[in-house]
Amino acid sequence: MLKILQLLVDLYGCEADLDDAEFLLSTLERAADEVGARVVRKVTHRFSPQGVSVILILAETHLSIHTWPEHGYAAVDIFICGEGRDPHAAWNVVREALKPRTFEINEITRTVGPRA
Amino acid sequence: MLKILQLLVDLYGCEADLDDAEFLLSTLERAADEVGARVVRKVTHRFSPQGVSVILILAETHLSIHTWPEHGYAAVDIFICGEGRDPHAAWNVVREALKPRTFEINEITRTVGPRA
Repeated sequence: MLKILQLLVDLYGCEADLDDAEFLLSTLERAADEVGARVVRKVTHRFSPQGVSVILILAETHLSIHTWPEHGYAAVDIFICGEGRDPHAAWNVVREALKPRTFEINEITRTVGPRA
Repeated sequence: MLKILQLLVDLYGCEADLDDAEFLLSTLERAADEVGARVVRKVTHRFSPQGVSVILILAETHLSIHTWPEHGYAAVDIFICGEGRDPHAAWNVVREALKPRTFEINEITRTVGPRA
């Protein structure tokens, strides 16, 4: 049984180009790297006329980002199972890259694995 | 600006075969279909020696499941942007398929899109 902190972050007024799929992918890859997570799958989807979704499946669960460039808005989920991984370190990488004017973080504690 | 209800569910003591990737994928597809969500990408990853991750990227964000068959445990995220979508309807599909002995739901309200 493991207590995991998952972060759900809403970013508003981002300065970064939220329609740049390569940039978003590399940002999540750097976030995963920052916490020592191992990426096993990378998926990018571009919406028409704009908007991007990027999901990294990790050995330790997932990182995701969905963007609405027309609103300067991005939804980021940081779900990293594994003891000693600090999701805030991953969030800091995303924050510095996307440069939101404001953001809201929901921090959720999940109990992962078997239960008594 | 849109208020979205996201569900993060921890399932314990599942009766279903949590190592069956096809079954998990079809369960998420049925959940997406139940709420009228449009699937744009499907990703399945099998871990060794066991465990599966499945993520559906939706036109309306994502559904994900990560399993630890050795613990009878699954982590399910139901994040469906779009007015009038009921995430509980999607959850009911997953619940009936995976047959957990117990579960815990975190319900998080997110504000998606531009802010005043």
